[in-house]
Amino acid sequence: MVPMEPTYTRPGEPTDGPLTFEELQLATRNRGMPLEALRYDVTPVGLHYLLTHFDIPFIASADWRLTISGVENPAELSYEDIRAMPAATLPVTMECAGNGRAKLHPRPISNPWINEAIGTAEWTGTSLWPILERAGLPDSAVELIFTGADPGIQGNVEQFYERSLTLAEARRPEVMLVYEMNGRPLEPQHGFPVRLIVPGWYGMTSVKWLVSIRTATEPFHGYQMTSYRYRAASGEVGEPVQRMRPRALMIPPGIPDYFSRHRLVQAGRVVLVGRAWSGEGSIDRVEVGVDGSGADATLGPSVGDFAWRPWSFEWDAQPGEHTLSCRATDSAGNTQPTEAPWNAGGFGNNMAQQVPVTVR
Amino acid sequence: MVPMEPTYTRPGEPTDGPLTFEELQLATRNRGMPLEALRYDVTPVGLHYLLTHFDIPFIASADWRLTISGVENPAELSYEDIRAMPAATLPVTMECAGNGRAKLHPRPISNPWINEAIGTAEWTGTSLWPILERAGLPDSAVELIFTGADPGIQGNVEQFYERSLTLAEARRPEVMLVYEMNGRPLEPQHGFPVRLIVPGWYGMTSVKWLVSIRTATEPFHGYQMTSYRYRAASGEVGEPVQRMRPRALMIPPGIPDYFSRHRLVQAGRVVLVGRAWSGEGSIDRVEVGVDGSGADATLGPSVGDFAWRPWSFEWDAQPGEHTLSCRATDSAGNTQPTEAPWNAGGFGNNMAQQVPVTVR
Repeated sequence: MVPMEPTYTRPGEPTDGPLTFEELQLATRNRGMPLEALRYDVTPVGLHYLLTHFDIPFIASADWRLTISGVENPAELSYEDIRAMPAATLPVTMECAGNGRAKLHPRPISNPWINEAIGTAEWTGTSLWPILERAGLPDSAVELIFTGADPGIQGNVEQFYERSLTLAEARRPEVMLVYEMNGRPLEPQHGFPVRLIVPGWYGMTSVKWLVSIRTATEPFHGYQMTSYRYRAASGEVGEPVQRMRPRALMIPPGIPDYFSRHRLVQAGRVVLVGRAWSGEGSIDRVEVGVDGSGADATLGPSVGDFAWRPWSFEWDAQPGEHTLSCRATDSAGNTQPTEAPWNAGGFGNNMAQQVPVTVR
Repeated sequence: MVPMEPTYTRPGEPTDGPLTFEELQLATRNRGMPLEALRYDVTPVGLHYLLTHFDIPFIASADWRLTISGVENPAELSYEDIRAMPAATLPVTMECAGNGRAKLHPRPISNPWINEAIGTAEWTGTSLWPILERAGLPDSAVELIFTGADPGIQGNVEQFYERSLTLAEARRPEVMLVYEMNGRPLEPQHGFPVRLIVPGWYGMTSVKWLVSIRTATEPFHGYQMTSYRYRAASGEVGEPVQRMRPRALMIPPGIPDYFSRHRLVQAGRVVLVGRAWSGEGSIDRVEVGVDGSGADATLGPSVGDFAWRPWSFEWDAQPGEHTLSCRATDSAGNTQPTEAPWNAGGFGNNMAQQVPVTVR
């Protein structure tokens, strides 16, 4: 067997085996945020995490239309139509539902994120709900189905990327159709010309390259709905993956070794800094652990109602080997676990980060 | 053994074993260009490949200085000083010297690129040589040493990232100190405030976060010079890794399977498109192979003297399984090999790309 050729024949089945060529292909295509970028309130566009299920489609804004159907007044909106609507800018922390997957045992086979599938951007666009009100939702509608322009195959199902939201979720004013990221038109990989943003939820719901919104009279069971579920085993119905679980991450202190990424830190006063967020509430507390013994970090002001909160912690670093960790608690009472919460899809693993360091 | 924990204890030693956790850490930090982005003359900033040896440093432009030393008139230049100099904009194709490493057997252990460590940007800045002429090079100088602001450890050597150029190379007018990428200030990961660009060479020479240029009276043997060499075995002296070997890449046609990235293509006329480049000459020819049988692609105009050249090829796709390939030849007579050119560091593997597809 040659390890760097396609070898894995059981997608969907977790493994304790070595990393597969297929996972490597996904890791080299998709993009994590190097954790030193936690220093930014707003992540530079080129450092924001990125997961693309299929290929990045390339759509000229002049050719783009958003079809709204299954409504009283079906519509076809242009890029200019969307840009002419009342605009707002909102900082939003977004995380991939698969963040942390590579740390699970056995390891569900998909994009092997360690903990870097995050980013915060300032999105500019217009609220979704007024558009739907003008379109006129029929009384029979219970959900909205959002379709992207990106076709592909997943789980043997040929599809365009599609996700749904209940009307109750879609009604929230912060659910937006956006056309700018950090003050500039979206780069193609982030959904140009227009994408959906659902603050507080994992990223799979914020459909990129949005081309269609249609109503559904019953809950939608498309592939991207049935795959994003917390299941103990692959046959189960499970629970839907929705809001981001709380997570804190720190900037690994000191300097790195290129190969191992192990950190070397100078003894003395070290200010550990990081960010924490939750889609289930505001961040109330971050505990920082040094060799298992924890204390509260100092919290700064959140970057926004739907964006991460900075924290800092002064550490008197003593020479030797140490393990640093951090752990967030949100206003809904959720705390990060210290053991990975396993599920068959590898979603929502918000186990507390651990950073081994050598102090000299 | 738990596969997704640090396990590899012999960095630098090639392996036919499975992908290591350390390689995964590098793959999730660093960023390849999804090959569908070959459609762009100029790669969007957030899609350009990125390799960071250590951590991305964060430098305010007001705090930044470039020290020029070992010269007759030592200088300390500010960001404004550099921006006030005569400016030029140049499209440059840049590739990581390690591109293709993951396809080698045995596999040298470092960032496991498959073939996506590429990108083309329009860099704006000022030529290096006039700055050095004003500084006054001593007769004894044979090289220039360029130091970045990024510290770290590699091969057990604590260092700031440092590379040298001979005076003959540094004199070329296209060797620039740049402060804009695609018309905007550099994003931090691409070297803000100012970086070096050495068109035609692999990316390791284009030192990011440049803070010092000093002369050397003999060839520089810093870590990043001695590591980037073509060696049959790790103890050898070898030859320096310098200019980009020729390479053609195609946009994988059709639609992808999420997990395997395998392509499904509709039967009939398919226009295959891609790009080709070489640091050793201009691109004279691209051959496209279908199941081993090749023919010449049509070449378009190069994006610039130091940037890739587009190509296209009409294919009458017949139902069944096929393997597509492409292969560039440059004006210096170099052609891509069909077998991987092995070396201990895993550099310059420009083996022709192969894309398996299913036509229906």
